[in-house]
Amino acid sequence: MKKEYLFTPGPTPIPTEALLSMARPIDYHRSPESANVIKEVAENLKHVFQTQNDVLILTSSGTGAMEGAVANLLSPSDKVLVIRSGKFGERWGEICVAYGVEFVSIDIEPGLSVEPQAVADILKSNPDIKAVFSTLCETSTGALHDIEALGQITRDTPTLLVVDAVSALGADDLQMDNWHVDVVVSCSQKGLMTPPGLGFASLSERAWEAVEKSTLPKYYFDFQKARSELAKGSTPYTPAITFIIALQQSLRLICDEGIRNVLSRHARLAEATRAAVKALGLQLFAAHPANTLTSIRFPGGLDSKAFVNNMRKQHGITYAGGQEELSGKIIRIAHLGWMNEYDVMVAISALEMGLAEAGYNVKLGAGVTAAEQIFTTLG
Amino acid sequence: MKKEYLFTPGPTPIPTEALLSMARPIDYHRSPESANVIKEVAENLKHVFQTQNDVLILTSSGTGAMEGAVANLLSPSDKVLVIRSGKFGERWGEICVAYGVEFVSIDIEPGLSVEPQAVADILKSNPDIKAVFSTLCETSTGALHDIEALGQITRDTPTLLVVDAVSALGADDLQMDNWHVDVVVSCSQKGLMTPPGLGFASLSERAWEAVEKSTLPKYYFDFQKARSELAKGSTPYTPAITFIIALQQSLRLICDEGIRNVLSRHARLAEATRAAVKALGLQLFAAHPANTLTSIRFPGGLDSKAFVNNMRKQHGITYAGGQEELSGKIIRIAHLGWMNEYDVMVAISALEMGLAEAGYNVKLGAGVTAAEQIFTTLG
Repeated sequence: MKKEYLFTPGPTPIPTEALLSMARPIDYHRSPESANVIKEVAENLKHVFQTQNDVLILTSSGTGAMEGAVANLLSPSDKVLVIRSGKFGERWGEICVAYGVEFVSIDIEPGLSVEPQAVADILKSNPDIKAVFSTLCETSTGALHDIEALGQITRDTPTLLVVDAVSALGADDLQMDNWHVDVVVSCSQKGLMTPPGLGFASLSERAWEAVEKSTLPKYYFDFQKARSELAKGSTPYTPAITFIIALQQSLRLICDEGIRNVLSRHARLAEATRAAVKALGLQLFAAHPANTLTSIRFPGGLDSKAFVNNMRKQHGITYAGGQEELSGKIIRIAHLGWMNEYDVMVAISALEMGLAEAGYNVKLGAGVTAAEQIFTTLG
Repeated sequence: MKKEYLFTPGPTPIPTEALLSMARPIDYHRSPESANVIKEVAENLKHVFQTQNDVLILTSSGTGAMEGAVANLLSPSDKVLVIRSGKFGERWGEICVAYGVEFVSIDIEPGLSVEPQAVADILKSNPDIKAVFSTLCETSTGALHDIEALGQITRDTPTLLVVDAVSALGADDLQMDNWHVDVVVSCSQKGLMTPPGLGFASLSERAWEAVEKSTLPKYYFDFQKARSELAKGSTPYTPAITFIIALQQSLRLICDEGIRNVLSRHARLAEATRAAVKALGLQLFAAHPANTLTSIRFPGGLDSKAFVNNMRKQHGITYAGGQEELSGKIIRIAHLGWMNEYDVMVAISALEMGLAEAGYNVKLGAGVTAAEQIFTTLG
């Protein structure tokens, strides 16, 4: 009787209502009923994005929405700034290369976050930079970037601020309108508690002005077509209506709780997790950790990859390991989406027992005790 | 107690096993178990595509796979031939325009199919044409193109044959390898009996050679990356693993029946539907109708759009109407995917009673009788 627990930063556990909605017989995506679902989802997404702008619904992973942002905003001769502090910041650069967009980059050691002043300096000496591409939470390291500060820098310049909130939307605060963010892209399988397969993009008015001038090729990810269809509760091409129906269920849960409360819940879960990690004598990997997931530098001598594989196989606990050059060196525990205090307790107690089993000198109970102290103090 | 019946050419009804598989708690898409699912699905797709080539799995609608074919095969200066006989043939041309690819077109009256000799003539006078873009079944009209004949024309030339089998895969025969088709694209929500959200592309060896030379921009739809990840049971970006798991179930049903038997079943269902339409005194819209769906020219004085809306609202029967310039003029009845003789009986008897209700002078029972005669003769 092995039970399965999922602590990866996407996909995240899906609420029962959303799971069951996908087992209903499928309906035609162009029916009036489907149009109403699309309209409700689009409206509730605005609440999560904290924006009055339209939120476009794409059938793709978050990467498709990222590519859409590049292809819809830019033209071949444009120059941009890419903030790279891990795999997902690097992805912005790779997309620029694929489209022949010139870019300068700020390259940050994995685990660290960008210094806003560095962005301000580069924009000052490169006034021709059309857009700054950043992540909110660099999922590969668990580091949070200060998007509010970046918005303060770009808001009074012609430079657009484009943010990959693929993993962190609904977990770390991102006030699109208040913070003057021009483009936010995200996806379904993280804070939105829906399977992977939907990408989202929201654009400010000045971002839409850039779209009108863009000449890079696009068809499937054409944002203008997506926007005009969305107004009718439709999409340019057949959408993953099954996931939109599941998302309708998950978004109702988020909207009932309220996005500010959802963010506070994630902050508490993250704080308790970090306290537990420290109480176990382990080190956080990120200097400015996100509330989306906690990355832990793995104690010397232990291979995090083998640990992650073993925890899944033996105990039904799925954490994420490190990616690429961080493989074997960190583990990542998400507290993201359909998660509460008891999920954190499972994640931490499994970590304690797993480390003990792996021969690491861990004080059993220290982590869960620290987490409980946070929950009872703040609760 | 209104029951719902879906006769649209996508999405199509989903087998219960596939529906229920989506209600299971989600798993990590990078687990060994998920890799095994992806490998099984990729292998079974080859059976449906009737090919030894890899079948790439993309998270997108079929249009994304179409765009991928253009972006991966071609370069900006290339010239291609596009066969246009309706909305979906036109889509190939629109994608070429978006990417700055030059094209000549064969434009065919809606309802008709391409004359292979016309293609041969154009290729003879335009030896620089890199690829011919066709549909198998033009879903907007129900017309079938003779892909086998086109393959005979292109196989001994340097020109690639690219086929949109988005709606017809698994319903109308398409022997990718035997017929020398270079690229086949399709999607999940038609003959594959899975929700919309997965696109597929399969490429011949000489198509892969063209991919190596292509310089059009691509990232999310990069076929080379998709191919190298597929070998590991993986994908370049997070896949819609929920749909891949559902597809695993649907593909097992197809492989158990065998693709040749699946195609024969569709041929029977289509023949019975056409016989019923004729027995009711109605006209088929397509001169060479596909086995995927049957398009019916709507009798004078009746608006097919109002009829379709009313049948859904009053009787729970969802047909498809005509698209764009065919709106109001035709109805389309799919016999596609998880369908048998009794589904055809429902579709036809609802049509008979609906027409009578709409004031059309229909001989009640004539259509279902003709269909039964086909089923008992051929059964």
